[in-house]
Amino acid sequence: MTGTGIIAIAAAISAFTGIGAGIGISLATGKAVEGIARQPEAAGSIRTSLLLGAALAEATAIYGLVVALVLVFLKMG
Amino acid sequence: MTGTGIIAIAAAISAFTGIGAGIGISLATGKAVEGIARQPEAAGSIRTSLLLGAALAEATAIYGLVVALVLVFLKMG
Amino acid sequence: MTGTGIIAIAAAISAFTGIGAGIGISLATGKAVEGIARQPEAAGSIRTSLLLGAALAEATAIYGLVVALVLVFLKMG
Amino acid sequence: MTGTGIIAIAAAISAFTGIGAGIGISLATGKAVEGIARQPEAAGSIRTSLLLGAALAEATAIYGLVVALVLVFLKMG
Amino acid sequence: MTGTGIIAIAAAISAFTGIGAGIGISLATGKAVEGIARQPEAAGSIRTSLLLGAALAEATAIYGLVVALVLVFLKMG
Amino acid sequence: MTGTGIIAIAAAISAFTGIGAGIGISLATGKAVEGIARQPEAAGSIRTSLLLGAALAEATAIYGLVVALVLVFLKMG
Amino acid sequence: MTGTGIIAIAAAISAFTGIGAGIGISLATGKAVEGIARQPEAAGSIRTSLLLGAALAEATAIYGLVVALVLVFLKMG
Amino acid sequence: MTGTGIIAIAAAISAFTGIGAGIGISLATGKAVEGIARQPEAAGSIRTSLLLGAALAEATAIYGLVVALVLVFLKMG
Amino acid sequence: MTGTGIIAIAAAISAFTGIGAGIGISLATGKAVEGIARQPEAAGSIRTSLLLGAALAEATAIYGLVVALVLVFLKMG
Amino acid sequence: MTGTGIIAIAAAISAFTGIGAGIGISLATGKAVEGIARQPEAAGSIRTSLLLGAALAEATAIYGLVVALVLVFLKMG
Amino acid sequence: MTGTGIIAIAAAISAFTGIGAGIGISLATGKAVEGIARQPEAAGSIRTSLLLGAALAEATAIYGLVVALVLVFLKMG
Amino acid sequence: MTGTGIIAIAAAISAFTGIGAGIGISLATGKAVEGIARQPEAAGSIRTSLLLGAALAEATAIYGLVVALVLVFLKMG
Amino acid sequence: MTGTGIIAIAAAISAFTGIGAGIGISLATGKAVEGIARQPEAAGSIRTSLLLGAALAEATAIYGLVVALVLVFLKMG
Amino acid sequence: MTGTGIIAIAAAISAFTGIGAGIGISLATGKAVEGIARQPEAAGSIRTSLLLGAALAEATAIYGLVVALVLVFLKMG
Repeated sequence: MTGTGIIAIAAAISAFTGIGAGIGISLATGKAVEGIARQPEAAGSIRTSLLLGAALAEATAIYGLVVALVLVFLKMG
Repeated sequence: MTGTGIIAIAAAISAFTGIGAGIGISLATGKAVEGIARQPEAAGSIRTSLLLGAALAEATAIYGLVVALVLVFLKMG
Repeated sequence: MTGTGIIAIAAAISAFTGIGAGIGISLATGKAVEGIARQPEAAGSIRTSLLLGAALAEATAIYGLVVALVLVFLKMG
Repeated sequence: MTGTGIIAIAAAISAFTGIGAGIGISLATGKAVEGIARQPEAAGSIRTSLLLGAALAEATAIYGLVVALVLVFLKMG
Repeated sequence: MTGTGIIAIAAAISAFTGIGAGIGISLATGKAVEGIARQPEAAGSIRTSLLLGAALAEATAIYGLVVALVLVFLKMG
Repeated sequence: MTGTGIIAIAAAISAFTGIGAGIGISLATGKAVEGIARQPEAAGSIRTSLLLGAALAEATAIYGLVVALVLVFLKMG
Repeated sequence: MTGTGIIAIAAAISAFTGIGAGIGISLATGKAVEGIARQPEAAGSIRTSLLLGAALAEATAIYGLVVALVLVFLKMG
Repeated sequence: MTGTGIIAIAAAISAFTGIGAGIGISLATGKAVEGIARQPEAAGSIRTSLLLGAALAEATAIYGLVVALVLVFLKMG
Repeated sequence: MTGTGIIAIAAAISAFTGIGAGIGISLATGKAVEGIARQPEAAGSIRTSLLLGAALAEATAIYGLVVALVLVFLKMG
Repeated sequence: MTGTGIIAIAAAISAFTGIGAGIGISLATGKAVEGIARQPEAAGSIRTSLLLGAALAEATAIYGLVVALVLVFLKMG
Repeated sequence: MTGTGIIAIAAAISAFTGIGAGIGISLATGKAVEGIARQPEAAGSIRTSLLLGAALAEATAIYGLVVALVLVFLKMG
Repeated sequence: MTGTGIIAIAAAISAFTGIGAGIGISLATGKAVEGIARQPEAAGSIRTSLLLGAALAEATAIYGLVVALVLVFLKMG
Repeated sequence: MTGTGIIAIAAAISAFTGIGAGIGISLATGKAVEGIARQPEAAGSIRTSLLLGAALAEATAIYGLVVALVLVFLKMG
Repeated sequence: MTGTGIIAIAAAISAFTGIGAGIGISLATGKAVEGIARQPEAAGSIRTSLLLGAALAEATAIYGLVVALVLVFLKMG
């Protein structure tokens, strides 16, 4: 049973990776709204770049989620 | 019983991921209201971008919540 | 009994997630009042955006609270 | 007895959540007085927004207090 | 006896919550005196807002104190 | 004897709360002298606000001292 | 079984490497949207550089993912 | 003997509180000399405020020292 | 088996080195896009320098990967 | 013998308090030389204030040294 | 076998030294591209200095790699 | 023998105090050379103040060294 | 064998000292290229000072390397 | 043998003190080259002050090295 517990901890640490993207994407969003406030007509171009960068950052959160789910379902099942 | 306890700790760590989005979305909100103060007529465009970015960030908090609930209900049930 | 104690610790860590929103919403509030000081006539629009972002951030604190209460009442009851 | 001790630690960690709101509300207050110094006639509008945001932040400290008291009185009583 | 010791540690952690308000209120005070230096005639309005925000922040320190004293007198008495 | 030792540690952690006020009051003082340098004729008003805020911050250090002394004299006496 | 648990922890730490890229790419995105807001006609050139740098940074997250998966499938299989 | 050792550790942690005032007073001093450089004729008023604030901050270091000496002489004597 | 587990932990720590390059390269990218926004005609020269520096930084992530893989395949094989 | 060792650790932690004053006084010195560079004729007044503040900060390092030496000579002699 | 494991941990910590150079070189690169954006005709001179400094910084990562490899091949072989 | 080892650790922690002065004096030096660059004719006065402050900061490193050497030669001799 | 392992850890911590110089020299390089961009004709003088300071900083990394190698070859040989 | 290992750890921690000077001297160098870029004709005076301050900072790294070598050769010989 203890092995199951440690794998659960491991899954949690892995899922915890999302904190980086959680803070980061928000900061990028902050910069984006700041830019739109300064240059409202560039809002479309800014939003495209924001999505592009946020997608790459979100990917790191998804890597963590994948490892977490692999550990939970494959090893604890 | 100890195994249950460790899984509870794991769920807590996983749910703790939300702290990143909690700080981040707030910072983005801060930037947004700052932008609206500077450019009140761009408020609609700013609010759209804020929602878009905050949704992506909120997602990381939800990944943590999902792993936490999976651990609590699937493994401790 | 020790299992109960560890679950209590887990609930505490989970509730601790609120610290992120606690700091963050305050910072957003700080930016909002700063913006109102600069542009008093945009106070309504600023306050709407503040509430919108703060609600999303508060949600992360609530996720932590939910996991904490689930652990306390479902598992220790 | 040890179980009681661990629950006490858990209650303390949970109450410790208040540190976020403690720092944050103060920072928001700092921004507010800064704004009043710049725009004394907007003092009323600024104070309203400060209270609104501070109430949401204070809520996170109260969530922690609630979990702490639930643990102390329900589980250790 | 060890149980008493752990509860004492818990009370200390809980009382330690005050550090947030201790730093924060001071920072708000710093901003307030800065504002008064810039706008001496707004000193009264600034001091009112400072007290309002500091009272909300001080409350988080008091929550910690309350949990600490509850633990010390109710559980160790 | 070990119980006495742990209570001593708890008292030390509790007294350690003073570090927040120690740093914070100093920072507020720094802002105050900065303000006086800019606006020497507002020195009296600035010093009053400094004392008011510093008293509230000092209070958090005193809460910690009180819990520390309660633990030392009531529980170890 | 414990060996499996420790390898799971190792995989989690390894996957956790992604937090660096998660924060970093977001910050770069923030700078990029800031730049587009200032110089909308350079959006294409900026987006190319962003992708180039983000790809190199994403690589570090992938190194961590690779080591994590190698540990999970090769050693725990 | 071990009890004596733990009390010694506690006294050290308590004395360690002084680090806050050590950094803080120095920062306030830095601001003060900065202010004097800008406004040499306000040197007297600045130095008075510096002493007032530093005395309040030094007090937190003294609280720690007091608890440390109480622990050393009362409990280890 | 435990030896295998510890080596896995070591490999994870070693792979974790990549976090430095992950954050750093992103920051450099941020500066680069900022520079291109200011001086679009220097984009080629900037991109060359970015690649040169990022290659040296990426190298540190690769050192960590190499040590990780050496530990995994040579020692755990 | 172990008791002696722990007291030695305690003395070391206590002496470690000096790190705060070590950093702080240096920062104050940095501000002082900055001020002299801007206002060379106020060098005397600046140096007096620097000494006054540094003496108060140095005091916190001395408190730590005193507790360290009391522990070393009184308890280990 | 445990000895081998601890040496593996030591090698990992040693290889981890590279994180400093990983962040640092990137920051220097960021400054370099910033400089080129401002002064495109100094690009050659800037790139030479960047390489010179980055080589010295990379050296610290290599020291860590050397100690790591010495530990892995000499002691675990 | 273990007692000797712990005293060695204590001496190391005590000597580690020097890190504060190591960083701090360097920062003060940085400010000093900055000041000389701005006001070359005040170089003498700046260098005197730098030495005065650095001597007080160096003192904290020496306190740590003294405690370290007292522990090494008096207690381990 | 465990003794060998602990010495390996010690060597790794000692080699880890290089992280300070790794970050620092890079930052100095960043400032140097910034300076060259502003004043291209002072490139020679800047590069000389950079080398001088970097050599002193690199020395601290070498001290750590020396202690690491002394521990590895003298004590583990 | 374990005693030897712990002394090795102590020597490593002591040598680790050099990290402060490693970062600090580099920062001072950065400020120095910045100053030379602004005031090339003051390069000699700046370099003298840099050496003076860096020597005092380097001293703290040497104190750590001395304690490390004393521990290694006197106690482990």
